[in-house]
Amino acid sequence: MTAAVSFIGRPTPARTTESRRAEAIRWIAGLHDELTSFFGRLDGGGTFIEDRWERPGGGGGVARVMTDGRTFEKAGINRSAVMGELPELAARRLGGHGAAAGATQFFATGVSLVVHPRSPKVPTIHLNVRYFELTDESGQLTDCWYGGGSDLTPFYPHEDDARTFHRALRTMCDRHHDSFHAQFKQWCDEYFVNVHRDNEARGVGGIFFDHLRPSEENGLNHEQITAFVTDVARSVRHAYEPIVALRRDEPFSAAERDFQLVRRGRYVEFNLVHDRGTIFGLQTHARVESVLMSLPPLAMWQYAPRYQPDSFQARLIAMLAPRDWASADEART
Amino acid sequence: MTAAVSFIGRPTPARTTESRRAEAIRWIAGLHDELTSFFGRLDGGGTFIEDRWERPGGGGGVARVMTDGRTFEKAGINRSAVMGELPELAARRLGGHGAAAGATQFFATGVSLVVHPRSPKVPTIHLNVRYFELTDESGQLTDCWYGGGSDLTPFYPHEDDARTFHRALRTMCDRHHDSFHAQFKQWCDEYFVNVHRDNEARGVGGIFFDHLRPSEENGLNHEQITAFVTDVARSVRHAYEPIVALRRDEPFSAAERDFQLVRRGRYVEFNLVHDRGTIFGLQTHARVESVLMSLPPLAMWQYAPRYQPDSFQARLIAMLAPRDWASADEART
Repeated sequence: MTAAVSFIGRPTPARTTESRRAEAIRWIAGLHDELTSFFGRLDGGGTFIEDRWERPGGGGGVARVMTDGRTFEKAGINRSAVMGELPELAARRLGGHGAAAGATQFFATGVSLVVHPRSPKVPTIHLNVRYFELTDESGQLTDCWYGGGSDLTPFYPHEDDARTFHRALRTMCDRHHDSFHAQFKQWCDEYFVNVHRDNEARGVGGIFFDHLRPSEENGLNHEQITAFVTDVARSVRHAYEPIVALRRDEPFSAAERDFQLVRRGRYVEFNLVHDRGTIFGLQTHARVESVLMSLPPLAMWQYAPRYQPDSFQARLIAMLAPRDWASADEART
Repeated sequence: MTAAVSFIGRPTPARTTESRRAEAIRWIAGLHDELTSFFGRLDGGGTFIEDRWERPGGGGGVARVMTDGRTFEKAGINRSAVMGELPELAARRLGGHGAAAGATQFFATGVSLVVHPRSPKVPTIHLNVRYFELTDESGQLTDCWYGGGSDLTPFYPHEDDARTFHRALRTMCDRHHDSFHAQFKQWCDEYFVNVHRDNEARGVGGIFFDHLRPSEENGLNHEQITAFVTDVARSVRHAYEPIVALRRDEPFSAAERDFQLVRRGRYVEFNLVHDRGTIFGLQTHARVESVLMSLPPLAMWQYAPRYQPDSFQARLIAMLAPRDWASADEART
């Protein structure tokens, strides 16, 4: 990947809101293009179709979707830049950063992807990076921050893949800050949970962060934060590509395919019942086909499935309990 | 069907809460058995497996599920009787009937079913009847009411089936009260809506009602209300059986099957994002496999599908706009 994109969101008094937002939009569009090229190459045959959409309240986005690729049954990579009145619910959730600080308007831009591989031997990956800002009545910036993350959802108990993924993320995080990995790994473990399924995790985790700002505590400036967030978007290269290369040609059985579809059902449950991004999208009247682009091409619900101890299904479910994958069994590998 | 079950929920001072609840539970168990026999016969080959479950906070249920039947790919018929502390959210939603009237405990019993036919030519049916009561600290009844309904979700534009369904429900309602059908048909049209999908209806509707009590306005006593609710449960005989008999052996294409799976995706979206029964179940820690038993065996999400005008898909979607099906085109039939 190239290093052509950068974004310095520093809110200096000299900058206009317009120029700051334009730069953020260019930054996200650059990452969107990089990720589209990356997954196009990785698929090895499929192509993305693109839809541009506008949001009635302000802004819009670009959805790119691959259907029936060689490796990916469905891959969706979406960017958006939306703005307008801060929805009341969102303002309340933001607390001190929202209405209390005089913020009445929001601007958000980000890129988000979910890919659903054909083979149950290849895990699903989700990745998102985003920039969010609030302004007051007069258009003055009252706050801005970054969020993002990436997490892996395997359907077959390849423990090595969880280690590959988490180690790549740890290496990437460590280049930017020595506490980011531990902190954002835990946040991810706490976030992607189907509370209604007895707190079962959606997958094996990864990293998740929100409200990331330059601060005395982290000692990073805007340039350094945006460099980190850019690297999150680019982490697929080391965290995901090697797994796809290793697993894409492994044979699989009908039982393995069925189990993949059942686990995709859990993915649907998380996204529709718990996911904040989905709820924000539906609340802010973003385009529904883009908000729900993350849903799998096919999913299955079996009634109360039971698995033999030590079956591949039972071993996969056991893998979902949060674990220190980046450090686990280092002696053995 | 037999007329063996009845329930007279009249809260006379002489009755104990225990005896009233026991009678409600027997009534619902009787309807559950009737419906299980009915759908077993209608399937023509499949059998139900039964799971009994207990709820940690009080009560439990009996789930009956048919998988891979002859006619039904999946059929779930669940009864439950749950009781305990009124959840705070539920109390707030109930307003004057809840916390304000001194209610601190709830009791709810009901039977609920969803069947997912194999063939896209056979519509999905959902039916539910329920009894709900609130009591205060001392165990005194503060309020009780009934709810229920039935609605049809076709996957192929057979307009005659929507007419058959709605006429049977109207005939049944009219035996009990001359305003029930119009009122409950409209309530159904307003309830089963995917707001996030530009207010697209889940199916062609049916009837839906809640908070139904004996009142001066409806002029019905407890016996008459429970007779109506019992008939709602039995309406499948005239509202659904003839449709299954007519359509089960119609051939269908792969495109028709795919469209059925896409429409089932919309069913999943409604149940997970909007359905009150599902949300109540998840809030009150009912058994998740029973709460989510209504989800289809297989569902598909296609990105932004577009259909030719006058294709069967476009005609099905056009059928979803609320219409007076019970009266429509009577001259022609």
